[in-house]
Amino acid sequence: MPSNRQILLDNRPEGEAVAGNFKLVTTDTPALKEGEVLVRHHYLSLDPYMRGRMNESKSYAQPQPLGEVMIGGTVGEVVESKHPKFKTGDQVVGMGGWQEYSVVDGNAPGMLRKVDTTHVPLSYYLGAVGMPGVTAWYGLTQIIAPKEGETVVVSAASGAVGSAYAALAKARGCRVVGIAGGPEKCAYAVDELGFDACIDYRQHPDVKTMAKALKEACPNGIDGYFENVGGYILDAVLLRTNAFARVAVCGMIAGYDGAPLPLQNPALILVNRLKIEGFIVSEHMELWPQALQELGTLVAQGKLKPRETVAQGIESAPEAFLGLLKGKNFGKQLVKLI
Amino acid sequence: MPSNRQILLDNRPEGEAVAGNFKLVTTDTPALKEGEVLVRHHYLSLDPYMRGRMNESKSYAQPQPLGEVMIGGTVGEVVESKHPKFKTGDQVVGMGGWQEYSVVDGNAPGMLRKVDTTHVPLSYYLGAVGMPGVTAWYGLTQIIAPKEGETVVVSAASGAVGSAYAALAKARGCRVVGIAGGPEKCAYAVDELGFDACIDYRQHPDVKTMAKALKEACPNGIDGYFENVGGYILDAVLLRTNAFARVAVCGMIAGYDGAPLPLQNPALILVNRLKIEGFIVSEHMELWPQALQELGTLVAQGKLKPRETVAQGIESAPEAFLGLLKGKNFGKQLVKLI
Repeated sequence: MPSNRQILLDNRPEGEAVAGNFKLVTTDTPALKEGEVLVRHHYLSLDPYMRGRMNESKSYAQPQPLGEVMIGGTVGEVVESKHPKFKTGDQVVGMGGWQEYSVVDGNAPGMLRKVDTTHVPLSYYLGAVGMPGVTAWYGLTQIIAPKEGETVVVSAASGAVGSAYAALAKARGCRVVGIAGGPEKCAYAVDELGFDACIDYRQHPDVKTMAKALKEACPNGIDGYFENVGGYILDAVLLRTNAFARVAVCGMIAGYDGAPLPLQNPALILVNRLKIEGFIVSEHMELWPQALQELGTLVAQGKLKPRETVAQGIESAPEAFLGLLKGKNFGKQLVKLI
Repeated sequence: MPSNRQILLDNRPEGEAVAGNFKLVTTDTPALKEGEVLVRHHYLSLDPYMRGRMNESKSYAQPQPLGEVMIGGTVGEVVESKHPKFKTGDQVVGMGGWQEYSVVDGNAPGMLRKVDTTHVPLSYYLGAVGMPGVTAWYGLTQIIAPKEGETVVVSAASGAVGSAYAALAKARGCRVVGIAGGPEKCAYAVDELGFDACIDYRQHPDVKTMAKALKEACPNGIDGYFENVGGYILDAVLLRTNAFARVAVCGMIAGYDGAPLPLQNPALILVNRLKIEGFIVSEHMELWPQALQELGTLVAQGKLKPRETVAQGIESAPEAFLGLLKGKNFGKQLVKLI
């Protein structure tokens, strides 16, 4: 049995998450029982939602238990199988967590899924053709549901969700405007991801200047907004919404550290007859096949070319994750484990 | 031609609305042209939305023009008609405004509607079987869409919207909890309107105590909320929402005076996967017949017994309206004009 390096949640953050919240340990992988599969992880996915799980307080899911391997999506290869549906060498996506190997019950529905890497690189199943891609798809198609010609906006535009959002919105004939941090990310969003415009929030650090930038980038107003951030950016977007605009709330990254982050003018919900809806994509598994099919097709056609930031080795995961929370990544943040 | 006393919007409020914003004038009713109808108003409806119209700033409709008769719903009797569909003595509901008579184009769609007072008193067509009733119906059935056994809450519970909401929610097998100001209104909500519980916000003047009262009144959490007020009550309700709760935003009365009224914890939209939707009932005219039929039936069956506060004479309208904004009315606020 190979030895397995794992990262556990050692203690909960008080305010900002820090490297000391995590602990690296080495264990042996256990012998497989009937029906189980041993997967060697090639990539670990790092995602903002993990920050919410680190808190004890009520979040949109069970908290991550202390002393256990951090939750997380993984892609890898079957190295041993006692389940008839999986064989050595199969490429699979699952929720293996922050570790080099995982033992998976092959019978548990949805825990392990074989993937085809003919047209789609393995790592993309953690990003554009995985949870982040489906997240963009759900928010855009199921909540915002834009008509051709409408203007839709997304924050964290150059990330895994934002890049899929742009491709999906362009495929529906929308004007798509991004918000990202820094000129490099904004140029990338426009030049590579297909955004019609991208606003650098570092140049527009308050509601007033952001609202002005949005007015210029969205001359016909905003019909749909995909919220990854919260705070003053949401306030500014709401000021520019058209009547009957829809807001899909997927993340409020700035609020995870516990600082209260009020919405300044909720009366706009009434004035502009807005619909604001929060969602968690894992609660809508019935729609994943449809979403993954569209996303895989966009990748195969070259219409969705996501960027990745790759950290090397399981020991780099905590620092890479903390960087992600601060927007240091560029595109999908991964940890390469082999 | 009878003389007609009218109340005009003379100037816009700076902060709180005051009696000096209005002006009483007397004019002659003009001679009718072909197709027109002269209506003598029996009752004028006073509603919170009128405060929004008094502002120049963008609201959920066009601002009330200065120097013109204040907008408002009216019921009355046709006293002269040059339109084949209306005859003297017909009882009608319309948007006649703050005046004793109005001249209406009988051909304009939806401007004047004949009503039957066999089972429903004329004044109810401004309340339970009128715009407020349909407002409750729309928010409850089209946005909250409760399942049997769910808990639904409404602020301004003893008012025209709240009383219809209670009857509609009980007809759907819900637990219905109200929020109102003062022990008298709360007792009335429970004893007469069918609320399962009613919380006196004067006894719970902050988020913490209101959230505690809601926890007691809603032991299974809150699945739907109809928002007439805004402010800390909304904050407290959101703290008690169940996953996938729905919030219909119909009013934010506390915000009309221009004071910023933030929503303290919008992250709950994500944590509890809420849907929050603003609406204006006049934008959904296609659903009014269905709503009015259900509301009229509830009245005829004695299941919806709304209370009215009636001011006498057009000259009393401004003070009655300002009182409504401060919660001084008890049930539907009307002005009797004959």
